Amino acid sequence: MMQLIKYPERKDWKKILQRPQADNALLMDTVKSILNDVKENADAAIQKYTKQFDGILISEPIVSKEEFAAGDEIPDSLKSAIRQAATNIKLFHQKQLKPAEIIETMPGVECYRKSVAIEKVGLYIPGGTAPLFSTLPMLGIPAKLAGCKEIIVCTPADKNGNVHPAVLFTASLIGIDKIYKIGGVQAIAAMAYGTATVPKVFKIFGPGNRYVTAAKQLIQLEGVAIDMPAGPSEVCVLADETANAAFIAADLLSQAEHGKDSQVLLVTTDEILARKVTEEINEQVLVLSRKEIAIAALQNSKIILVNRIEEGINIVNEYAPEHLIICCIDDVAAANKIINAGSVFIGSYSPESAGDYASGTNHVLPTNGFAKAYSGVSVESFVKKISFQKISYEGLNSISDTIIAMAEAEGLDAHANAVKIRLKK
Amino acid sequence: MMQLIKYPERKDWKKILQRPQADNALLMDTVKSILNDVKENADAAIQKYTKQFDGILISEPIVSKEEFAAGDEIPDSLKSAIRQAATNIKLFHQKQLKPAEIIETMPGVECYRKSVAIEKVGLYIPGGTAPLFSTLPMLGIPAKLAGCKEIIVCTPADKNGNVHPAVLFTASLIGIDKIYKIGGVQAIAAMAYGTATVPKVFKIFGPGNRYVTAAKQLIQLEGVAIDMPAGPSEVCVLADETANAAFIAADLLSQAEHGKDSQVLLVTTDEILARKVTEEINEQVLVLSRKEIAIAALQNSKIILVNRIEEGINIVNEYAPEHLIICCIDDVAAANKIINAGSVFIGSYSPESAGDYASGTNHVLPTNGFAKAYSGVSVESFVKKISFQKISYEGLNSISDTIIAMAEAEGLDAHANAVKIRLKK
Repeated sequence: MMQLIKYPERKDWKKILQRPQADNALLMDTVKSILNDVKENADAAIQKYTKQFDGILISEPIVSKEEFAAGDEIPDSLKSAIRQAATNIKLFHQKQLKPAEIIETMPGVECYRKSVAIEKVGLYIPGGTAPLFSTLPMLGIPAKLAGCKEIIVCTPADKNGNVHPAVLFTASLIGIDKIYKIGGVQAIAAMAYGTATVPKVFKIFGPGNRYVTAAKQLIQLEGVAIDMPAGPSEVCVLADETANAAFIAADLLSQAEHGKDSQVLLVTTDEILARKVTEEINEQVLVLSRKEIAIAALQNSKIILVNRIEEGINIVNEYAPEHLIICCIDDVAAANKIINAGSVFIGSYSPESAGDYASGTNHVLPTNGFAKAYSGVSVESFVKKISFQKISYEGLNSISDTIIAMAEAEGLDAHANAVKIRLKK
Repeated sequence: MMQLIKYPERKDWKKILQRPQADNALLMDTVKSILNDVKENADAAIQKYTKQFDGILISEPIVSKEEFAAGDEIPDSLKSAIRQAATNIKLFHQKQLKPAEIIETMPGVECYRKSVAIEKVGLYIPGGTAPLFSTLPMLGIPAKLAGCKEIIVCTPADKNGNVHPAVLFTASLIGIDKIYKIGGVQAIAAMAYGTATVPKVFKIFGPGNRYVTAAKQLIQLEGVAIDMPAGPSEVCVLADETANAAFIAADLLSQAEHGKDSQVLLVTTDEILARKVTEEINEQVLVLSRKEIAIAALQNSKIILVNRIEEGINIVNEYAPEHLIICCIDDVAAANKIINAGSVFIGSYSPESAGDYASGTNHVLPTNGFAKAYSGVSVESFVKKISFQKISYEGLNSISDTIIAMAEAEGLDAHANAVKIRLKK
């Protein structure tokens, strides 16, 4: 099903690596009108859109304490799993913030940067074709570690008006108690503008469909920060003849089952492996419950044959995949040459699904080539770093000539005066 | 000239602290049409707009090696000043990147995040009413420290088609050799889309006027990253009765001279100080070469009297100033309570102009309240952090139950299979 491209020339890479294009211009007007409606009509508009799009009337969007109890009903095995995942995520993320370090750039000129939590953050947990509760620890744990004071969650309810119990269990586990049964564009609008029910936040996090992504981009124009723009999920596998075809097929399918617009890529030096992977995919796909989605996604997907692994690394860096799995003899050496990727999985026993759930790394990652400029979510995403300087009389004296000369050359007298007046120059 | 507001009630803070609003909706259409024109007609469109807006025909936008020589003509005193500033900026910024640290979340599950430079970055240095060459080291030095491979600069030329010699000197000093004589929206478009002359970049940095800011926001919708949205520059001074009125007046004026749309704020517990500062401003402003601009900016500006310094700190955090100067008896204690600000200047000998030029901290900072969610520019702005995981057979085995339980609960069979197939579960 995947298209096989043999030994492409460098000049053709860009075209080959193009993602399936979705024309967002068409949906922007719809998204804008929903945003504006929620801005003006707040909770009433949210209720209207929830009825219209999710087919359910939610008169009280906040999840009550009683409703939270449903989280306790999930199987014990799932509880243990979520606890283990949360432990690993916490372990990995808690070392991401370093204490402020004072740097004396000159005697008496002390400078430092301090990480301070963003006070109010909103986490969007999509519903969609799968109840993706695993995104909640990926956003909630770093938010808690950063020290955000107000952490709210928006997620669509099911047809009975309930939030998935695994979301409720996870929220309780990590200490989040404000969940709103709001999904889609209206959820982003609610968190961006605030309503009588939903508090306004300063930054909005989380994946979503094209409408949610467009909404996040538009509210960013109005001054609300977002984690990153999101596109359909994707994986790239870089492999040589030492790789295991069955493992690779399983990895490609695990990405393909996400959505019909997902894309998977295999870049390999070995044509025999390429054929074996295709055979394995054809066999493994048959038993999947989300078979149809996976098959559709494979239509967008490609196997690219390259002459040498170095060339493969260059193709990967040009593509900038969200997830990259490296299965080749010198896997660590190859990993060290990756400059554009969201998260990298090194070796045959590092499947993407390990990072999706439990290794401890974050699964909210830059898609669509954004890995060229964006990082995945981390504790750093939930803080801003404020710079501080404390300068003594002597310190100011030692940099005064520099400040005055530069300010005057820029034609900014008052900048120079602010120094002169202190030193009576 | 500044408005005095005495002891406002908390409910009125939001209104009082509102920034002068600029309606960007009106200019968006203009900006969009220029962006689209450059996207389609590239260098020809750039030449056209440079002629139209800057009144000059630039047939060869790149600054030649010969032209770079003009940088050597600036006075030795300015050269020394720029060298000193660059040294301090480098000292402060070079400690911002930490080496990757491997965290073994479980035995055999090794995870780390590595900072990797954004390969291609574009720096915008505005011309405007003052030749702001001091922004170049603030962007160029962290870009170099991060290890960006391609660093380009766009800046408008003067009426004679020349780039300010201080910009050329600074660029040479920090090792940047690609400067394009392009300003405004067309510069942002050139860097976002690329032309035959100007390479496409992955992230665009730098302050600019409303048109430049709008252009940066719009190209962000097309997947090019930006440092942050920018608004007019602003300073807030928090002071008690121990503060020096003349120093504060000089600081407020140094911000007010930036532009007519700048805003300055004094929050103080002392009415006598408020009066003295006003008197000082009235006196000091008279001798400024940019007097008219400063006077206009002061019309947007306010002195807010508060009962206690704690209340003042809360007002500051609500306002989230780009620059905050703290002149009160317990200045360090007050600084520790600041949660929303771009850069903080502690004590009477820490004027904002020290940070603007030479203390070592960055002067590209979040304005317009964006300090609630955004940080100033740092070396981190020029990298993305890629996460890596290397899992052994035993490591995968130890987290396999967790992955499988969560994947199956999310209805994602193929995610579970990717683990099962490796462990033959």
